[in-house]
Amino acid sequence: MVKLIRKSGNTRGLPPGSVVHVGDKKTADVHISVFDYSAAKTQEYDITNVEECFSLKQKPSISWINVDGIHDVEIIQKLGDCFKIHPLVLEDIVNTNQRPKIEEYDSYLFLVVKMLSIDEQTQELRIEQVSLILGSNYVISFQEQKGDVFTSVRERIRTDKGQIRRMGADYLAYSLIDAIIDNYFGILEGIAEEVEIIEQDVISDPKPEILEQIYHLKQKMIHLRKSVWPLREVINSALRDDSALIKQGTKIFLRDVYDHTIQVIDTIETFRDMISGMLDIYMSSVSNKMNEVMKVLTIFAAIFIPLTFIAGIYGMNFVYMPELSLRWTYPLVWIVFIVVGASLLAFFKYKKWI
Amino acid sequence: MVKLIRKSGNTRGLPPGSVVHVGDKKTADVHISVFDYSAAKTQEYDITNVEECFSLKQKPSISWINVDGIHDVEIIQKLGDCFKIHPLVLEDIVNTNQRPKIEEYDSYLFLVVKMLSIDEQTQELRIEQVSLILGSNYVISFQEQKGDVFTSVRERIRTDKGQIRRMGADYLAYSLIDAIIDNYFGILEGIAEEVEIIEQDVISDPKPEILEQIYHLKQKMIHLRKSVWPLREVINSALRDDSALIKQGTKIFLRDVYDHTIQVIDTIETFRDMISGMLDIYMSSVSNKMNEVMKVLTIFAAIFIPLTFIAGIYGMNFVYMPELSLRWTYPLVWIVFIVVGASLLAFFKYKKWI
Amino acid sequence: MVKLIRKSGNTRGLPPGSVVHVGDKKTADVHISVFDYSAAKTQEYDITNVEECFSLKQKPSISWINVDGIHDVEIIQKLGDCFKIHPLVLEDIVNTNQRPKIEEYDSYLFLVVKMLSIDEQTQELRIEQVSLILGSNYVISFQEQKGDVFTSVRERIRTDKGQIRRMGADYLAYSLIDAIIDNYFGILEGIAEEVEIIEQDVISDPKPEILEQIYHLKQKMIHLRKSVWPLREVINSALRDDSALIKQGTKIFLRDVYDHTIQVIDTIETFRDMISGMLDIYMSSVSNKMNEVMKVLTIFAAIFIPLTFIAGIYGMNFVYMPELSLRWTYPLVWIVFIVVGASLLAFFKYKKWI
Amino acid sequence: MVKLIRKSGNTRGLPPGSVVHVGDKKTADVHISVFDYSAAKTQEYDITNVEECFSLKQKPSISWINVDGIHDVEIIQKLGDCFKIHPLVLEDIVNTNQRPKIEEYDSYLFLVVKMLSIDEQTQELRIEQVSLILGSNYVISFQEQKGDVFTSVRERIRTDKGQIRRMGADYLAYSLIDAIIDNYFGILEGIAEEVEIIEQDVISDPKPEILEQIYHLKQKMIHLRKSVWPLREVINSALRDDSALIKQGTKIFLRDVYDHTIQVIDTIETFRDMISGMLDIYMSSVSNKMNEVMKVLTIFAAIFIPLTFIAGIYGMNFVYMPELSLRWTYPLVWIVFIVVGASLLAFFKYKKWI
Amino acid sequence: MVKLIRKSGNTRGLPPGSVVHVGDKKTADVHISVFDYSAAKTQEYDITNVEECFSLKQKPSISWINVDGIHDVEIIQKLGDCFKIHPLVLEDIVNTNQRPKIEEYDSYLFLVVKMLSIDEQTQELRIEQVSLILGSNYVISFQEQKGDVFTSVRERIRTDKGQIRRMGADYLAYSLIDAIIDNYFGILEGIAEEVEIIEQDVISDPKPEILEQIYHLKQKMIHLRKSVWPLREVINSALRDDSALIKQGTKIFLRDVYDHTIQVIDTIETFRDMISGMLDIYMSSVSNKMNEVMKVLTIFAAIFIPLTFIAGIYGMNFVYMPELSLRWTYPLVWIVFIVVGASLLAFFKYKKWI
Repeated sequence: MVKLIRKSGNTRGLPPGSVVHVGDKKTADVHISVFDYSAAKTQEYDITNVEECFSLKQKPSISWINVDGIHDVEIIQKLGDCFKIHPLVLEDIVNTNQRPKIEEYDSYLFLVVKMLSIDEQTQELRIEQVSLILGSNYVISFQEQKGDVFTSVRERIRTDKGQIRRMGADYLAYSLIDAIIDNYFGILEGIAEEVEIIEQDVISDPKPEILEQIYHLKQKMIHLRKSVWPLREVINSALRDDSALIKQGTKIFLRDVYDHTIQVIDTIETFRDMISGMLDIYMSSVSNKMNEVMKVLTIFAAIFIPLTFIAGIYGMNFVYMPELSLRWTYPLVWIVFIVVGASLLAFFKYKKWI
Repeated sequence: MVKLIRKSGNTRGLPPGSVVHVGDKKTADVHISVFDYSAAKTQEYDITNVEECFSLKQKPSISWINVDGIHDVEIIQKLGDCFKIHPLVLEDIVNTNQRPKIEEYDSYLFLVVKMLSIDEQTQELRIEQVSLILGSNYVISFQEQKGDVFTSVRERIRTDKGQIRRMGADYLAYSLIDAIIDNYFGILEGIAEEVEIIEQDVISDPKPEILEQIYHLKQKMIHLRKSVWPLREVINSALRDDSALIKQGTKIFLRDVYDHTIQVIDTIETFRDMISGMLDIYMSSVSNKMNEVMKVLTIFAAIFIPLTFIAGIYGMNFVYMPELSLRWTYPLVWIVFIVVGASLLAFFKYKKWI
Repeated sequence: MVKLIRKSGNTRGLPPGSVVHVGDKKTADVHISVFDYSAAKTQEYDITNVEECFSLKQKPSISWINVDGIHDVEIIQKLGDCFKIHPLVLEDIVNTNQRPKIEEYDSYLFLVVKMLSIDEQTQELRIEQVSLILGSNYVISFQEQKGDVFTSVRERIRTDKGQIRRMGADYLAYSLIDAIIDNYFGILEGIAEEVEIIEQDVISDPKPEILEQIYHLKQKMIHLRKSVWPLREVINSALRDDSALIKQGTKIFLRDVYDHTIQVIDTIETFRDMISGMLDIYMSSVSNKMNEVMKVLTIFAAIFIPLTFIAGIYGMNFVYMPELSLRWTYPLVWIVFIVVGASLLAFFKYKKWI
Repeated sequence: MVKLIRKSGNTRGLPPGSVVHVGDKKTADVHISVFDYSAAKTQEYDITNVEECFSLKQKPSISWINVDGIHDVEIIQKLGDCFKIHPLVLEDIVNTNQRPKIEEYDSYLFLVVKMLSIDEQTQELRIEQVSLILGSNYVISFQEQKGDVFTSVRERIRTDKGQIRRMGADYLAYSLIDAIIDNYFGILEGIAEEVEIIEQDVISDPKPEILEQIYHLKQKMIHLRKSVWPLREVINSALRDDSALIKQGTKIFLRDVYDHTIQVIDTIETFRDMISGMLDIYMSSVSNKMNEVMKVLTIFAAIFIPLTFIAGIYGMNFVYMPELSLRWTYPLVWIVFIVVGASLLAFFKYKKWI
Repeated sequence: MVKLIRKSGNTRGLPPGSVVHVGDKKTADVHISVFDYSAAKTQEYDITNVEECFSLKQKPSISWINVDGIHDVEIIQKLGDCFKIHPLVLEDIVNTNQRPKIEEYDSYLFLVVKMLSIDEQTQELRIEQVSLILGSNYVISFQEQKGDVFTSVRERIRTDKGQIRRMGADYLAYSLIDAIIDNYFGILEGIAEEVEIIEQDVISDPKPEILEQIYHLKQKMIHLRKSVWPLREVINSALRDDSALIKQGTKIFLRDVYDHTIQVIDTIETFRDMISGMLDIYMSSVSNKMNEVMKVLTIFAAIFIPLTFIAGIYGMNFVYMPELSLRWTYPLVWIVFIVVGASLLAFFKYKKWI
């Protein structure tokens, strides 16, 4: 299950801007890779020593520095010092409790988004925090671990597909966010399948296990929503941003991303509506089932208990029971049995219980 | 059932503006038809080769190019190139996951609306995406398949009924949207009938099947709402639009459409309220029914179980049971039976259970 | 029951501004009456030929043209032509699906409000659409049928009571709206009585019929709300209107009407809250009742079933049952009966079920 | 119970500004008292003839005219004429259906607030309408009956405590509103006690009577909310008021009152949340109880019904039942009884029902 | 349990600005401590006589006067007189019913926030009111009792860690608020654990005690929410504040605090959603359990009651019952028993009840 909140006990009491990692340490070592590209050429290499990327800041080409693993605060700190990142931003990068947000600083924009994936084994939602620093000619991205949804972006840079190599750093940042949000649709498709399966089951065969499934789906939606809802405001802010960091030409693409975000939110809300509808149906069908059980019990009990009583009467051992010695009384009792039983059956038929 | 979200796996990872069809391929081949009209005359013809309509852009007359079938992205792309449509717009046209929206570009407006219909066989809601490109002297409409609600618009152009031939392309776009929204009222009338039937049933005879009907109605409303709700903002934006594409004279008609949209939304909300009220009633009446079943059971059990016990006592085979040999004990036991039974009946009468 | 939506199949596909009556034809023939008044004198007469009122437009006196019956579109059309009413307005007047609204045109304001009444026989809510055209020196009111809440307004004009004859057409329009909203309070008073009756019943004697009553009340509130809620915005718009049609002196009265509208909405919301509270109480008390039924059943069954079993043991016909022939065993069994019965009673007493 | 709406049948159809009392006549005769004070001295006297207070308007000292009893419309009318109060205001003063509001007129502000009290005998909420007219040097307050929460204000004027005698009429009006809102806290404290008592009961011993208590509490909250909620906007309007009637120095005090209003609203909302939580708990615990009842029934029935059947078998009178005459069969049957009974008990133990 | 509202009976009727303590007296005596620091040096001492700190106002260094215990109004009053605090502010400081707020005065800002802690013994939420006065070179903080979350702030001043000694009084105030909000995360972590434990229990083993736990958790969330929700607006106001009291350089830190507040609110809302989901699950699983109990009862009763009846028939003592003396009838009855019992079992198997 997604953690509701990560322990951050060790950060309390520290001065603001203290860079302390909060979250699960998801990878053993930090891995820094760099894309350095312009319309003409692309360079791609890994970095083992963080100082190597300091020179990128001055180069006219666009640099994308991707950091996998944020638990080694020293590296984050060094990068921050070089690129003149505010300590509060560094603090936020390593604290994975952030909600999606955008913050404008003098020479860069700071964005936090959540990258989602479904654990293939447990089918649970995994949420990974991705922080982006967008400078005039560079983008630094911080991820909690290796493995992301940026493969296609990398491919496009390498193969010069689309216009990515001819656009600025803002377009690169857009491409990364777009890849993350595009991925949400995949998550939603998976959930849509779950919803459709549960939907059929809840009407045709409402077993108690469905309750648990509905509950888990609901919790998933709560976490999804928490990750996606603030994105709307984030991208809207980026659209209204009037610094030079986001160029007018990129904004038309951001508007497209904004649209996608609204679509995602819309779909999440639709799912929530449907799930809550299913719960109602489940509750009602449990009541219906109980009703049916009760009817069966009542019909059996109401028919046979009176009959047993009649039989009980003539099982009494009184010496003076004149009926007992008459020849026609035993068949008569049988007639009584049949008449009483049939009348009660007719009564339940009339009540539409049968 | 309406798909919650269409698979779009093949679009992920592509650069923005990649025109890839997302949705069900609802028609075999693409069909393009053109209306080319002015106040004086109307020309109406089908086009087999998309290049044929490139000339229309330059003509002073108003052209309506209608494309049925959006899965052939090549055709869409060619049209887009000729009319200088932004790649992101083309991407949206062929992706049927869009929500209703309006986007303003330099030389055209891009609108997405949802055309609704009821499948005559399954009684299910079908949602078809209609995209409109409104240029200064042309309207391009994209539909997923043949068959639409624009028959009357075509008829009015052909027969010069109303003022449509004397107005611009904006009036044509308005007429198309108006036809789509007018059609919503028909859908709502159908739903109103369903609501009224279920309403009567839920009070007079609340069977378990009603639950399923209510559920399907509720899901229908969720999908309807998702299609209509954003329209409000779309048309409001069109009203506030200050480009030259929508003329002041057309805005009075748009205001009328806006009104209709609000009416539709209002009615949907009313339906939702009513459906949720019905579910409450259904749940309560199930409880009521169970109550009645329980009462019948309790009355039968509580009356006959004590009597059976009494009969059981005198069915015991003890040698020394002096009552058994007395002459008046058997009639006395009958009196006891009647008194106990009557008292219990009176008790239940007093409790108002009978 | 109030129709959720009126069939308007015959309007679909017509060009905008097509004046086609949508709704029930509530009256056989159209009836036009005119009040022509100034501070000095009042003229009141019926009109059989619609052309007769064309002259009123030019006269300096204030004219109130009231049209009962809107199904004869020809008459509406003629009036519209004379007073230069926009075709879309005429279309709205004869389509009774409108929600309350205000629209500003160059030389007149167009208002739609809903006049409510309670059918004396069925106790159902009836909603009638009243459209008002407010010109500089005239008011045209359109009603669906004869019979309205304007009697007092007419009386005030006739008898020169209040300041109505010294004020303009805007004051007349205000008076009509005020009369309609004043009438809402009467409807609400009736509903308040219903609410109070159901409220007492739901606590003292929650019968299943109450459920139906609550449901009907709830539906009534939904329709009331739909009629009244938009009025708030309508009158607010009229207050902010800066055309010359509504004079400053009248606005103080409109503010009073606005206040009344808020009061009505407030009361409707309070009713909704109370009704939803009642439904909760009803549901809970049904559960409580079932609980009580179950307790009675359980007490009877749990006491007498074990006793019957004991009696059954000594009803067995085994040859070797030494107890049967002992003298003190029969009284002992009676003691067992009493002890077991009393213990179970004590147990249920301890459980507070008795 | 608080009336939902007061009958106002006799006001309908009257011209606007008709001063007709709507509400219960709560006091026999009207009582007018006057405080006439300046920093230097205070005069306090009752008035029997309304004309006596006309002179106060011209005096430089601050006058507080308090009217207890608003059913005598003649007196209200005379006061209104002298102080040039708009007829619509007078109409509102005598109609106790008003919601809290503020209205600005040329030479005065008109405020309506609701004074709350708890009936000591029935513990029901009583709502009394208090109208205030704030002029440049006078405040007129209208109450429905004698008895109010202004004792401390009077005392402060008499004894020159605080700064009230050195401030203007606006400070007096503020003091009155402050006294009314201060009193709300007392009401809320009483409700808090009720909430706490019900809270304990609902968990420890959820009896059906609690349902009624929760319902009454809920209704009380609905009425409280209706009285207090609009106050927020009223005082906010007074704060933003830029007429000379409310001086800057008084606004700091109004801000304090605004704060208190928010506190009251906050507390009401918290109560509503808690009450709705209690209802959920009550419903669940009723279900729990029923569950327990059912378990007891099921355990008794499931154990003894099979045993009774076994006993019944050997109670049959067939001639050829070889078991009956065997010596060890009777003890064997006892062993069967014990084994079956114990197994079923174990089964229920395993099911955790015992 | 947190008090919903503190008795304030003794403040009603007093003139505004009357400084009367409202709340529990949580500490015996008032304790005043002072930090007087600049970049160069720090002085830290306790004060026994309130006059001692009057000189601090004039000193150029930054002073932090912390008052533990607010029940001694005389001390508060003296401090207020010296630092020229408005009487309404003093009134608010000693009244612990305040909601979080910010108020701007000429020479200082007044802030109220709520400091939360969990009682280690009862696990209940404790809420303590902290009031801050932020002047140009001093901060006065008022707490209800000793013991707070400011230890780390004190440590940072003492050891010159971070930049606190080089910043102004506004940064000190920020640090205090930051410490309080940081502490909220600790509270939330505790609640997250509770939520996770209940979550597992509600699905695996829904006992009635869980209901009480859910209820208490829900109440805790209501109180938390009431304390935290208004903070958002408070800090937003501080951010928009344009007085010289909050310097631009501090605002970047305030924005960080704002972010944390949103995170806290977000998490609270997520918890509320989850808790409400759990309640639904609990309710459903109670219904499920009842269903299962009913099934067991019905199966036992429906199988053995008919069988007992059959046994009862042949327990009757009629003289003429020819079956009784036939040799094969007793085995036949056994076959009937087995066939009937097996058929019923099969029926319940078919119904999927077993």
